[in-house]
Amino acid sequence: MFFKHIYEKGLAQASYLIGCQKTGEAIVIDPKRDIDEYLKIAEQEKLEIKYITETHIHADFLSGSLELQASTNAELLLSDEGGEDWQYQFPHTSLKDGSVFKVGNLKFEVLHTPGHTPEHISFLLTDTAASEIPIMIFTGDFVFVGDVGRPDLLENAAGIIGTKEIGAKQMFQSVKRFKELPDHVQVWPGHGAGSACGKALGAVPSSTVGYEKIVNWAMKINDENEFVDELLAGQPEPPKYFAMMKKLNKIGPSILGGMPHPARLTLNQFKKAINSNVKIIDTRDKLSFAGGHVCKSLNIQDNSAFSTWAGWLIDYEEDFILVAPDHRIEELTKALIRIGLDNVSGYVPDMDAWANACHETETVNQIVVADLVEKLNDGDTMILDVRGISEYNSGHIPGAINLHVGYLENNLDKIPHDKNVIVQCQSGDRSSIAASVLLSNGYKNITNLTGGIVAWTDFGQKIVSEQEVEMA
Amino acid sequence: MFFKHIYEKGLAQASYLIGCQKTGEAIVIDPKRDIDEYLKIAEQEKLEIKYITETHIHADFLSGSLELQASTNAELLLSDEGGEDWQYQFPHTSLKDGSVFKVGNLKFEVLHTPGHTPEHISFLLTDTAASEIPIMIFTGDFVFVGDVGRPDLLENAAGIIGTKEIGAKQMFQSVKRFKELPDHVQVWPGHGAGSACGKALGAVPSSTVGYEKIVNWAMKINDENEFVDELLAGQPEPPKYFAMMKKLNKIGPSILGGMPHPARLTLNQFKKAINSNVKIIDTRDKLSFAGGHVCKSLNIQDNSAFSTWAGWLIDYEEDFILVAPDHRIEELTKALIRIGLDNVSGYVPDMDAWANACHETETVNQIVVADLVEKLNDGDTMILDVRGISEYNSGHIPGAINLHVGYLENNLDKIPHDKNVIVQCQSGDRSSIAASVLLSNGYKNITNLTGGIVAWTDFGQKIVSEQEVEMA
Amino acid sequence: MFFKHIYEKGLAQASYLIGCQKTGEAIVIDPKRDIDEYLKIAEQEKLEIKYITETHIHADFLSGSLELQASTNAELLLSDEGGEDWQYQFPHTSLKDGSVFKVGNLKFEVLHTPGHTPEHISFLLTDTAASEIPIMIFTGDFVFVGDVGRPDLLENAAGIIGTKEIGAKQMFQSVKRFKELPDHVQVWPGHGAGSACGKALGAVPSSTVGYEKIVNWAMKINDENEFVDELLAGQPEPPKYFAMMKKLNKIGPSILGGMPHPARLTLNQFKKAINSNVKIIDTRDKLSFAGGHVCKSLNIQDNSAFSTWAGWLIDYEEDFILVAPDHRIEELTKALIRIGLDNVSGYVPDMDAWANACHETETVNQIVVADLVEKLNDGDTMILDVRGISEYNSGHIPGAINLHVGYLENNLDKIPHDKNVIVQCQSGDRSSIAASVLLSNGYKNITNLTGGIVAWTDFGQKIVSEQEVEMA
Amino acid sequence: MFFKHIYEKGLAQASYLIGCQKTGEAIVIDPKRDIDEYLKIAEQEKLEIKYITETHIHADFLSGSLELQASTNAELLLSDEGGEDWQYQFPHTSLKDGSVFKVGNLKFEVLHTPGHTPEHISFLLTDTAASEIPIMIFTGDFVFVGDVGRPDLLENAAGIIGTKEIGAKQMFQSVKRFKELPDHVQVWPGHGAGSACGKALGAVPSSTVGYEKIVNWAMKINDENEFVDELLAGQPEPPKYFAMMKKLNKIGPSILGGMPHPARLTLNQFKKAINSNVKIIDTRDKLSFAGGHVCKSLNIQDNSAFSTWAGWLIDYEEDFILVAPDHRIEELTKALIRIGLDNVSGYVPDMDAWANACHETETVNQIVVADLVEKLNDGDTMILDVRGISEYNSGHIPGAINLHVGYLENNLDKIPHDKNVIVQCQSGDRSSIAASVLLSNGYKNITNLTGGIVAWTDFGQKIVSEQEVEMA
Repeated sequence: MFFKHIYEKGLAQASYLIGCQKTGEAIVIDPKRDIDEYLKIAEQEKLEIKYITETHIHADFLSGSLELQASTNAELLLSDEGGEDWQYQFPHTSLKDGSVFKVGNLKFEVLHTPGHTPEHISFLLTDTAASEIPIMIFTGDFVFVGDVGRPDLLENAAGIIGTKEIGAKQMFQSVKRFKELPDHVQVWPGHGAGSACGKALGAVPSSTVGYEKIVNWAMKINDENEFVDELLAGQPEPPKYFAMMKKLNKIGPSILGGMPHPARLTLNQFKKAINSNVKIIDTRDKLSFAGGHVCKSLNIQDNSAFSTWAGWLIDYEEDFILVAPDHRIEELTKALIRIGLDNVSGYVPDMDAWANACHETETVNQIVVADLVEKLNDGDTMILDVRGISEYNSGHIPGAINLHVGYLENNLDKIPHDKNVIVQCQSGDRSSIAASVLLSNGYKNITNLTGGIVAWTDFGQKIVSEQEVEMA
Repeated sequence: MFFKHIYEKGLAQASYLIGCQKTGEAIVIDPKRDIDEYLKIAEQEKLEIKYITETHIHADFLSGSLELQASTNAELLLSDEGGEDWQYQFPHTSLKDGSVFKVGNLKFEVLHTPGHTPEHISFLLTDTAASEIPIMIFTGDFVFVGDVGRPDLLENAAGIIGTKEIGAKQMFQSVKRFKELPDHVQVWPGHGAGSACGKALGAVPSSTVGYEKIVNWAMKINDENEFVDELLAGQPEPPKYFAMMKKLNKIGPSILGGMPHPARLTLNQFKKAINSNVKIIDTRDKLSFAGGHVCKSLNIQDNSAFSTWAGWLIDYEEDFILVAPDHRIEELTKALIRIGLDNVSGYVPDMDAWANACHETETVNQIVVADLVEKLNDGDTMILDVRGISEYNSGHIPGAINLHVGYLENNLDKIPHDKNVIVQCQSGDRSSIAASVLLSNGYKNITNLTGGIVAWTDFGQKIVSEQEVEMA
Repeated sequence: MFFKHIYEKGLAQASYLIGCQKTGEAIVIDPKRDIDEYLKIAEQEKLEIKYITETHIHADFLSGSLELQASTNAELLLSDEGGEDWQYQFPHTSLKDGSVFKVGNLKFEVLHTPGHTPEHISFLLTDTAASEIPIMIFTGDFVFVGDVGRPDLLENAAGIIGTKEIGAKQMFQSVKRFKELPDHVQVWPGHGAGSACGKALGAVPSSTVGYEKIVNWAMKINDENEFVDELLAGQPEPPKYFAMMKKLNKIGPSILGGMPHPARLTLNQFKKAINSNVKIIDTRDKLSFAGGHVCKSLNIQDNSAFSTWAGWLIDYEEDFILVAPDHRIEELTKALIRIGLDNVSGYVPDMDAWANACHETETVNQIVVADLVEKLNDGDTMILDVRGISEYNSGHIPGAINLHVGYLENNLDKIPHDKNVIVQCQSGDRSSIAASVLLSNGYKNITNLTGGIVAWTDFGQKIVSEQEVEMA
Repeated sequence: MFFKHIYEKGLAQASYLIGCQKTGEAIVIDPKRDIDEYLKIAEQEKLEIKYITETHIHADFLSGSLELQASTNAELLLSDEGGEDWQYQFPHTSLKDGSVFKVGNLKFEVLHTPGHTPEHISFLLTDTAASEIPIMIFTGDFVFVGDVGRPDLLENAAGIIGTKEIGAKQMFQSVKRFKELPDHVQVWPGHGAGSACGKALGAVPSSTVGYEKIVNWAMKINDENEFVDELLAGQPEPPKYFAMMKKLNKIGPSILGGMPHPARLTLNQFKKAINSNVKIIDTRDKLSFAGGHVCKSLNIQDNSAFSTWAGWLIDYEEDFILVAPDHRIEELTKALIRIGLDNVSGYVPDMDAWANACHETETVNQIVVADLVEKLNDGDTMILDVRGISEYNSGHIPGAINLHVGYLENNLDKIPHDKNVIVQCQSGDRSSIAASVLLSNGYKNITNLTGGIVAWTDFGQKIVSEQEVEMA
C-alpha cells in the first residue's frame, strides 16, 4: 500500500493519494484544483489514478475532482446522501452509507457521517493484503485532530437559516458512531491547524481513534444538548467566499485544462487598467505597501494566508491585477484558482518602476505604541480593532472598536471621516489589509498601528478583555 | 504541539522536528547531516531547537546531531545504554531506560529497546497540555511499519562476529515490551520502504501499536527461537559503507559548518585529474553512460538510490569527481555528505564537450533479449546476474551466475576475460553500475542486457527459481 | 542616441534597436520572431518602439516584424524595390532608394543595395544631434565583415533558376556604391560568423567602410566578370528550409501573440504518439542518443546549431515531439519558432524513465579510428562522409563517399543495406544526425565514427583532398 | 580573429576578450574582478587566455588582472610609463610607448596616451591574417565616444593637488596623436554612458577615429589653453571610493580565488549584529524602505547604480549586512567585490519577517508636491537638493539648498535639527539614500519629496537655474 498525505498550507487543506502497488491502481481523496502534484506523484510511483472521491461538498476550496477526471479519465465516486438539496449535479458513481469499493487490494467502506454537512461521508480503509482489520479512516471535515467540523457554515456563510442546530445534532450521532471504531485506527482528517472549518484544530497531521476518544472535547460530552451548545459556541467568522465555493462545488467547477499564467503588463497597459478601475491586488509585504502603492489597491500579502484573504476581498465576477514579482506569479495564480478566482487579467512586477514613471503613489501612515498612548483620550481618535470577535473579546486596547476586516466594507457607516482612525490587529498584517480597504473607499484619515496588539503588550500597556469589562 | 515528519527519500530515512508552541522550544530526533531543512522549519514555525536526540548509533547515514548542535547550541541527549562498546565518544547528556525529559509541555519517556543495536532507545511522547496519555512513540530502527530492525548489521557489515543471535533475542524482549503499549499510540519509525535497515518495510509512513500487533509478523510470533530464526532469515546484503558509518557516528562526525560546493572543472583540469587517476563518478542516466563515458569512470546514476550506491562504491579516503550538470550539484553533494563522502574534488557538467575535445570515450555494448536467446548455449557466454541473492533465488535467467554488484570487485577471479560477459539485473540500473565496474577493471568483453530480467519475462522467456531447481 | 546590437547565436543573426533618447522613440531593424528581448530593452531604456524595418525578405529566419507590430503598434517600413515578384504582401509604408525617415533626431537614408536579393536595402544613419555626417550603416545581407551576401540562395534554395548571375552583377554595382561612403562609417551587418547567408563571415561583429575597402575580397576586385565568378564559387549548400522562409516572410508570418509552451507528456501519451508515428526529435547530446533512444527518432542536439538542423530535417506541416529536459523547453521552442517550426505537440524530459518503463530503445554502434583502419579495405564497408562538399573536397578519409547530411533522405538509393555503413563528419555531431536519419529509414547496418575526421587525423591517418586525387 | 565586448552596466565599464582562432590564444583587456565571464567565453570559444593587460591604473573599479592571472597563469602586460609614482607594485611584463606584442596573429602596438592618468596607454590592434593596416584601437579612459577622460580625478578624488592642469595638457598632446590615426580605425573605449570617468559619454558602445574627429568636442579645439579650460569645466563630483581603488590597483588587489557567498542570518543573528552596530545596507526599493526598515540602515537600492553608491557610502574597513532576497545575493556580492567591498558579513532576506518578530522599524515620511507648495515659505522648512552641483545649477526648486548626497555626512553642520528638512533629488532614488543617511545620524525631521524635481515640474511648478538667479 502506498500512502501520501498532500498538505496545502495556505488553506490548511489535506488530500490523499493512496495506491495499491500490486495492481498499480490509485485513488485521490478530496483533490485540490491544482492537480499537477497528484499527476507527478502517480508518475513517480508508477500508479494510475483510477478513482477520485470526496468526503463532502467543500466550502473552503474549489474541488479538483472534475479537473483531475478530465486529465486522467478516472471514475468519480461521490456521496448521494444528505437529501435532495445536497446532490452533486454532474455525473458520478453513487456512494451511500455502507457502500464498499476496492482500489486493487485496498477496501474502502463508506460511512455516512453528517454534521458538518448533511451529505458528508468518511472512508474506512482496510489493506486486505495485510489484514482484514481496518488501518485508517479518512474523516474529511467530520473529525479533526482534537476537534470536529463546524455545523454552522451553511447558516453563517451560505445564509441558510436554521440549519446549524440540526447539523450539530447529526454531528452528535456521527461522533457516537466514530467512537465504536477500534482504538488503533489512524485518523486522517481534511484539515490541519489554521483552517476555518473547525475552531480548535491541532498542529499534528493525524491521530488515532483511541487518542481522540481521550483528548477530543467532542468525544467526551455524552449529553446531546450540552454537545450542541458547546459546538455552536465561539465559532469564528466564516470567510465570505464559502457560500460561492459550496455552490460551485455542487454544480461542478469549470475545467481549466492546464495552469493559467497571467500576462506581465507594461506600465502603459497598467496605467490603462488603473484608469478603467480594474481592481489591483498588491501582494507585496505590508512595509513595502505602506511605503507607496497605487491608489485604490488592496494589500493582500503573499504569505500563507493569501488564498483566504483573496477569497474575502475579491469578487468572483470581477477582473483584477496582481502586483507581484515574476517568480511568484505561478504560485499566486495557483493559490487563486484553488478558490476559483480565475480572473487575473495581468500582473505588474515592479511598483518602484511605476512610482518612478508615474509618481502617483499613496502611502499608509504608521504610528508606534509610544505615540498612540498620547492620543488615546484626545477625543479625535478612533481605535479600530479589525480582528475576529473572539480575539477581541479575549483582550483589546482600551476603547478600541471591533469590526472584522472582512466585513469592513459593509460597515463603513460606523467609521467616521472626521476622526483619526487608527487600525490595528494582532501584529499588523490584517490591519494593513484594513488600511488598504479604507483608503480605497476614500478615507484620508487612516493610520496603521505598527506591531498591533503584540507591540502594545510588549510595550507594557494593559489590554482589557470583555470579561473584565463585564466584571467591572 | 507542532509535529513534522522529515523524510529523506534517498536513504528512506525519517527524522522528526517536534515543538511546543506554547514555550517555543523544539527537539529534533535523528537529524540527517544536511541540517538546513530543520533550521528553516524552526524559523518558519518560530521555534527554537533546544534539544537533539538519536534513537541509536546509525549505520546507514552520518548523523547530523553534532552539525545541528554547532549551529543551534542545542543540548544533545544520547543513549548511555548498551555497554561499554556502545558509548558515544563525545560530550552529551546521558539517557537511560526510564529517563524522562521535557520539551516545553511535551514529555518524552525513554525506553531501552535493544535488538537492532545494543544501545537502541525509543521515545514515548505525551502532550501534557492535552492529556496524560501518550500520543505517539518514536521507534527508530526498532519497530518499522510491518517489520522490525535487523540485528545482523553489526555482524554482516561491521564484521563483529557472533552478535546477531544476541541481538535477535534482545529484539524478542523489546517487542514484548512494545506490545504492552496502548493500541491507540501512533508509531513513527526511523525508516520507510527501501531502507536496508529492515527487510520488509511498508510504504506507509506511520502505524499504531494496535495495528502493528495485528499485522506485523514480529508481533505474532510468541516463541523466541522461532522469532530468532525468522528474523535472521533472508536479510539482504548490507551496504559496504555501514561499518564506517557506525564508527564515525560513535566518535562523532566532523562538522561541516555549511554546505560545501565543489568546483566546476575546465576540460584541462579534468584531463589532468584523469591522468592522475582520480576516481570519476558519472551520474548521468545509464543510456547516456552507455553512449560514451570517460574510461574507468563508474556509473552511479542520479536517482533516489544515489547515496546508497555511492556508499557501496566510493572509498572514504579517496578524492573523486562527479560528472553531473550544474543544477544537480547541490543535491548530489547533499546526498554524498549524508553518508560522509566529503571528498568531491570537482565536477564536470558536459561529457559531450569533453568527447568533442578529447574523443576518448568508452561505450557499453548492449544486447536485447531476442539476441541473448541465441547466445545462451553457445559456450562462449556468461550471464552475470548482479542482483541480491534473494532476488536471484526467487527467479533468474537459466544458467545465470549471481554476484552482487557491490561485491564484484572482490570477486573478479570468478569473471572470465575470455568469454562474453552479459551483465543483467532487474531493469538495467545495477547492471550499468556493474558494467562500469568491470570496464574500469580492464574487462573488454562486457555487454549489458537491456531491460534486465523484466525485459526477459516480458519477452515470454521463462525464469527459474532456486526452489524449482531444487525440486527438479 | 541609444544603440543595441542584438545577436542570436543559433542563426548568427543580428538585429538592432536604435533610439533617440531625446524624444523616446526607437526603431528595430530586422527583428527576430521571439520579440520579448526588444520589448524588455525598450522598457528598461524608457524608449517606445515606433518603427520597424527590414533590410530584405529574409530566407534564413522568420521575420518578427509583424509579431512586434502586433505588440507595439509600430509603423512598418519596408522595401518596395526589386520588381513585382519581390513585394511584401501585407500593409506597410513604402521605402525606395533615396527614401529618408527620422526616428527622433536620428536620420535614416535608404540605399537600394540589390545582389543578395533584388529588393535589398541598407540604412545609412546620421545622428543629427551630433553631426550632419553619417555615423553608421546597417547593411543586412549586403556587406558582411570580410564578405558580401550570397546571390545564389534563390536559385539553390528556392529553385528559381537563372537568377544567381543577375544577382552577382547587381552585387558588383552595389559594392561600387558602398565604396563611395566615408571611411569612418561603421558597418553593422545582418549576420556574423556561422551564417549560411555568406561564405566567409568574420567573427568580429562590426567593421568600417575604410577597413572593408582594404580587407574585404569583394571590394578589391574591379572586374565585373572576375567578381561574379569569385562570388559564385564554392558557396556551401543552403539549408532546405530557406525556400519556405522566403515565402512566409513575403506573405507575412502568422502572429503568435505570446510565446507557446509545449505540454509535458506522460509516458502513456508518449507511447500513443509513437504509435501514431509522430516525428520525435531527440535533443540530447550524441553520446546519450547513441546509448539508447526511441526507434525512428532524429538526433538534433541542443546546441547552437539546433535551429539550423531543425530547419533541414523537420517538415513545416508535420507535428513533432521533443526529447529534452524541462529547463530547456523554453529556449528550444524559441529556437524553433524563429524559423517557423510551430508544431511542437509536446515533450518528454526523461528518456531513461521511458527506457525503464518500455525497454524499447535503439542504440547507435560506435567505431574508433583504430578499428576502422582494419575495415577500410575489407570490401564490406562503406565510409559515408556527411559533411558539405567543400569540406569533403579539402580533405577526407581515403575511399569515403560524400553525401551531405541534409540531403541523405533524397539519396537513400546510393546507400546499400548489405554493407557496413560507417557515417562520419568533422567531429561527430552531424554523423549522429545522419545515423539517426538512416536508422529511422530502416537501415540496420549503421555505425558512427567516434570523433570524425578530427580523430582520424589526430590518430596519424592521412586524409586525401580532391586536388591531390586530381594531381595523381 | 575573435572579438568580444564585455560590458558591466553598473559601472558602465567595458573589457575585451580578443583571440586568435588560428592559434587558440587570447588576451583580456581591463578585466573586472568577477572573472567567471572571461573563463566561460574562453571555454566556449576554445581559446586559452594567455595574456592580460590594462590601459591604466583604474580608479573606478578593482582590477581583475591578478584574479584572472591566478586562475589562468596568463602573462601580465602592464604600463611602465608615467614616472615613479605610477608604477604597478607587483610583478609584470613591462609595456612602454612603442612596445609591440602578439597574440597569435594579432599584433598589439602600445601607444602612451597620458592625460586621464600619467601612465595611461592605448592598444592599436592589427589582424595580420587579414591586413597590415590596423583594425581597431582600445582607448581605455583616453578617448570615449564623444568625450575624453577626466584629468581631475587624482586631484578631486585622491587629493593629489596641482595635477589636473598637467593632465589636461598631456591629454591635449595625446589627442593630437590620436587624430593622426586612419579614419577607418574602430575605437573601443573603457567606458560607456553613465561612468564617472568622463563627463559626456555617449550611449553608443564604439566609434571610429574619423567620426570622433568630426563630432568629439575634444578633437575640435586646436588651442591648448582653450582645451584645458573646457576639459576642466563642469566635471561632476568623483565618487569617494576612487582614491582607494587607485591605491589598491597599484599595489595589487587581494585574490579572492572564487566568488564569496555571504551567510543568510537568522533573525537572532541579525538582532545581535544590529546591537553590535554592524552597518546595514537595505537594498530594497525606496518604497519598501520608506514603509519600514531597521533603524540606522542605509537604503542603497538594488539597481544599476548599486556599486557606485555602495562605493560612496560604505567604508572599506567595516563589516556590513545586506537586506536583500536570496536570489539577488549572488549579483549584489559581485557588484560589491567589483569595487573591493569584500566585507559582507551576512544577509537578511525578509524585512517583513523581522518587523513581525521585532516591530522596531523606522519609516521615511513622504510629501507630495501639492503639499510641499504650502510649506515653501513657512519659515520652518528647508528644501535639501542632494543632486550634483551641475544638475542643481541647471534648475532647482526655489529656495532649495544643494548638498551632494555623497558628502552629506561631511556637512551635517549645515542641516538643522529644528526645521522640517525635505530631501529631494531627480526622481527619488538619491533622496531615499539621503534620508537614510540623515535618519541614521539621528535626525528626526526628515521628509522625502515623492518624485523629486520631475514631479515638481510635472505638477507645473517653476524651477529656477543659477543663470536666471544671476541674471535677475
